[in-house]
Amino acid sequence: MAHVKHMKWWGWGEEGVHFEYANKPAFAPFVKKALGVDLRPRERDTIDFSTVTVPSSRAGQDVLETLARISGTDNVTTDDELRVVHWAGKSVTELLLTRAGDFARVPDVVVYAGSEDEVAGVLRLAVEKDLVVIPFGGGTSISRSLQPDPAEERTIVSLDLGRMNQVLAVDETSGLATIQAGVLGPDMEAQLNARGWTLGHFPDSFTHSTLGGWAATRSSGMQSDKYGDIADIVRGMRVVRPAGTVVLRPLPSTSTGPSLREMVIGSEGRLGVITELDVHVHRLAERREVIAYMFPTWQQALTAMHDISRSDVSTTFARVSDARETAFSLSTQKAPATLRKKVAVKGQNLLWEVMRRRGWDTAAMCISYVCFEGSTSEVDRRKKTVAGIVKKHGALVLGSGPGALYDQKKFDTPYLRDFLLEQNTIGDVSETAAPWSKLTTLHQAVYDAADRAFQQTGKTGWIMSHMSHSYHSGACLYFTFGYELGEHPHEEYAVIKGAIQQAFVDSGGTLSHHHGVGTEHSPWMEQDVSPEGVQLLRGLFATADPGAHLNPGKIVG
Amino acid sequence: MAHVKHMKWWGWGEEGVHFEYANKPAFAPFVKKALGVDLRPRERDTIDFSTVTVPSSRAGQDVLETLARISGTDNVTTDDELRVVHWAGKSVTELLLTRAGDFARVPDVVVYAGSEDEVAGVLRLAVEKDLVVIPFGGGTSISRSLQPDPAEERTIVSLDLGRMNQVLAVDETSGLATIQAGVLGPDMEAQLNARGWTLGHFPDSFTHSTLGGWAATRSSGMQSDKYGDIADIVRGMRVVRPAGTVVLRPLPSTSTGPSLREMVIGSEGRLGVITELDVHVHRLAERREVIAYMFPTWQQALTAMHDISRSDVSTTFARVSDARETAFSLSTQKAPATLRKKVAVKGQNLLWEVMRRRGWDTAAMCISYVCFEGSTSEVDRRKKTVAGIVKKHGALVLGSGPGALYDQKKFDTPYLRDFLLEQNTIGDVSETAAPWSKLTTLHQAVYDAADRAFQQTGKTGWIMSHMSHSYHSGACLYFTFGYELGEHPHEEYAVIKGAIQQAFVDSGGTLSHHHGVGTEHSPWMEQDVSPEGVQLLRGLFATADPGAHLNPGKIVG
Repeated sequence: MAHVKHMKWWGWGEEGVHFEYANKPAFAPFVKKALGVDLRPRERDTIDFSTVTVPSSRAGQDVLETLARISGTDNVTTDDELRVVHWAGKSVTELLLTRAGDFARVPDVVVYAGSEDEVAGVLRLAVEKDLVVIPFGGGTSISRSLQPDPAEERTIVSLDLGRMNQVLAVDETSGLATIQAGVLGPDMEAQLNARGWTLGHFPDSFTHSTLGGWAATRSSGMQSDKYGDIADIVRGMRVVRPAGTVVLRPLPSTSTGPSLREMVIGSEGRLGVITELDVHVHRLAERREVIAYMFPTWQQALTAMHDISRSDVSTTFARVSDARETAFSLSTQKAPATLRKKVAVKGQNLLWEVMRRRGWDTAAMCISYVCFEGSTSEVDRRKKTVAGIVKKHGALVLGSGPGALYDQKKFDTPYLRDFLLEQNTIGDVSETAAPWSKLTTLHQAVYDAADRAFQQTGKTGWIMSHMSHSYHSGACLYFTFGYELGEHPHEEYAVIKGAIQQAFVDSGGTLSHHHGVGTEHSPWMEQDVSPEGVQLLRGLFATADPGAHLNPGKIVG
Repeated sequence: MAHVKHMKWWGWGEEGVHFEYANKPAFAPFVKKALGVDLRPRERDTIDFSTVTVPSSRAGQDVLETLARISGTDNVTTDDELRVVHWAGKSVTELLLTRAGDFARVPDVVVYAGSEDEVAGVLRLAVEKDLVVIPFGGGTSISRSLQPDPAEERTIVSLDLGRMNQVLAVDETSGLATIQAGVLGPDMEAQLNARGWTLGHFPDSFTHSTLGGWAATRSSGMQSDKYGDIADIVRGMRVVRPAGTVVLRPLPSTSTGPSLREMVIGSEGRLGVITELDVHVHRLAERREVIAYMFPTWQQALTAMHDISRSDVSTTFARVSDARETAFSLSTQKAPATLRKKVAVKGQNLLWEVMRRRGWDTAAMCISYVCFEGSTSEVDRRKKTVAGIVKKHGALVLGSGPGALYDQKKFDTPYLRDFLLEQNTIGDVSETAAPWSKLTTLHQAVYDAADRAFQQTGKTGWIMSHMSHSYHSGACLYFTFGYELGEHPHEEYAVIKGAIQQAFVDSGGTLSHHHGVGTEHSPWMEQDVSPEGVQLLRGLFATADPGAHLNPGKIVG
């Protein structure tokens, strides 16, 4: 079988890697207070696949044989565990279903395509034999962009791009690389770094998601302030469709009608399968530093982030946690194990003392991280300017120590979700973007909506937020929420997540800043892009895929 | 009749404004040498409209009455001159046809819609009565995006947006303005400037084109390095369609499937009529300076522009003319009329002497302009850095004098085209964008192709170019070409312009960087976005406008 690395069939990330709380003394008390949940030590390291029953493959022998002719016997499988690995993404709903063994409909066959020709062959077969094809990158979707329609009667092919994982070329003069769609983040960065380049795109899912998946779901990485959203990064593409391949050459800018590039980006497989991308790449920065700041209040912090964004200074990212997320963040600090770390804790206690003496309410303070990249002199100049801005808004400069820690831990958060699920507790995220003028009211509206939903469902719920991804006219607000599961997990989740999503669109925000639509967010599409906008999208999908073979039902029903 | 300002029916710009060559002593000799044409003084200041015959309006009384009910009698007209003003844009082909009175098919009625409701009424009527609707902004298109299909049998409505010309709101916190689509550039800037803001979008057509037109044709302004292309500037839109209005709220970034915003931008009226836009606006810069530099060679100049683009310095624009355009530019200098200007000429002669002493070939030298905006200290810092970069590539810093002159003259060039046409001479432009790695070969390939086409048509032709609009991965090359008209003007033009367009796509460039597609560039669409890409666009237009009422035939046939 093809050597493609997959995540745990039952959760996030690699087998053997877990969130640990025993070494974080403040964490269990925090969870107890926030959610009313008594944490227990982790009971199991994995889940035995034999404990679940998987619906049999419905793929006919003729389809399997043709697929084997296209991609080779070794690259076509009806293995139950691999079909379950490919059945869905990692949204809370999908994790709940997976852990319950509740697989309404699972792909009937997984094909690991090794080339554009193979992808084209699979799509042609799909039209000929009336199959459904769902492209699969890393499987990190939290918008249910992968899960098949439970009522789908046709044979479903999960088309895994994982074998197409090469950086094919770097145009060093133009800062452009041609890269296959199925490459995982770290593998791609390793290939680029070896030549002195980076894509600079680091979404939370980075370690387990793919370049093609980022493009197909309109991803944005933590460093988008410098490197852009994936829609800015991708300049050219090859997109395989049943009747032929859309070839968009790498162009810095063009005036050729409606943007096909921007039509394919975010299309979640509904217009075809992205096999190859031309993307902006950048020289590795001479110096990189993440500096932490502490603000007395959320409002001061937000205004400072906006001032940084509209200043002459370029930052790689500028983010700030609100008071609740700051408190959460402090609760996940490890107990100091070394003398050096014990000194650091003393330093921190001293800092708290300084703040209290300044009259800060330490329950209101907000931690911020700003990343600087560039030449040493540029980094120094920018740090100085930013220090001036944040101080004007009452912040203390904490320096590079906490920043380095943030940088190390940044991809670990998704493991926490699985740990909490085992404790019968939901920890989930949802994010939006809105104009600067609406961020404060939106933030409050989401909190109010979540609190109402927690009340309605009888929960001791928790919600917290940070601001990240600055643009000229606005920014992203990213919310994390949690609560203990009740007897009707899916219904409760719909109420709570739904309330948050509704508050987004009601407050001038978008239903999703960088997690796509799938089926999870499609109920808000008409409110976000208007009913007539949804009609245009429906028409586009219908004309591009009249037989509904390409990941049907996603984005708009 | 509605008070909407129009350009000359027979040419560019305002009646009474002309290109003058008598006060530019080097110009006639330059044209003689470059094109073999002996310039004569301008013979007429205008063309009497009574000299042409216009096909009668075919609009039925019922349609005219309904339109009058929608927009008011004063805003509906079948006047011949107004119909001719609206019949086409200002491409060379259209100017030739207009001057020859060769109006194959002219809109049957012009409607000046004053509101979104009126636009909606017109579109509903179009579906009901099987009409064709062609939205009209300023009429500056040079891609034949406005000209009706000569074979169109149905009644054609030119829908003029010129009454919808208000800045409706400015969100000062977010740097966003809500503006009606029909506002002309200067009118919009005046309204914004009065509140301390600017859009920063200045295409060559600025004085006579509209915000809605820029969006509908994917425009890019001279200052796009700082302010972005129109696709970056526009964040939200209202787009009226027969069945309803697509409402895209102003969002800094979103992950809601294929981008409807990027689908409507560049759609040239084929998806509906843009009536209102939410756009990025910026505070007027504290300081603005345009500095000129002279490079010894094109290659050194290009590399320097690329180095500026990838440096830590933000510029508002950075452009460089090649040797031929530099020579042309010098030929359009006015004779010095004042003592101060005579001193300046002496200074210039001295400069030439310096260059010759340095061993420069003055026939190879290239003039460059870089614009800096920001705080005084930032402008100074950036100027210093850029001076260091250009000097490394052998340039001399000419200072702000020539830069200021460039800034004043920047919107005047289109008048030259009309002057030359009267002299039976074509002066026209075409532009592309390509990755940095391809600019040098593309530039040469276009020159070679143009020279072959000039030979083929027996012309003494001229072509020149500048680089402008820098992006991370490439830039725009903008070509201007000229030749004396022969007996078969349309056939000759097709050979020469066609050769240039073909060289663009053959050399890795796009068919248009910021002038749209219309019918002028549609023959290269398959080569630019691939046949399957064109199929996707055809499907989109067919599904969005099944009755082909909305500016049919444009972009893809």
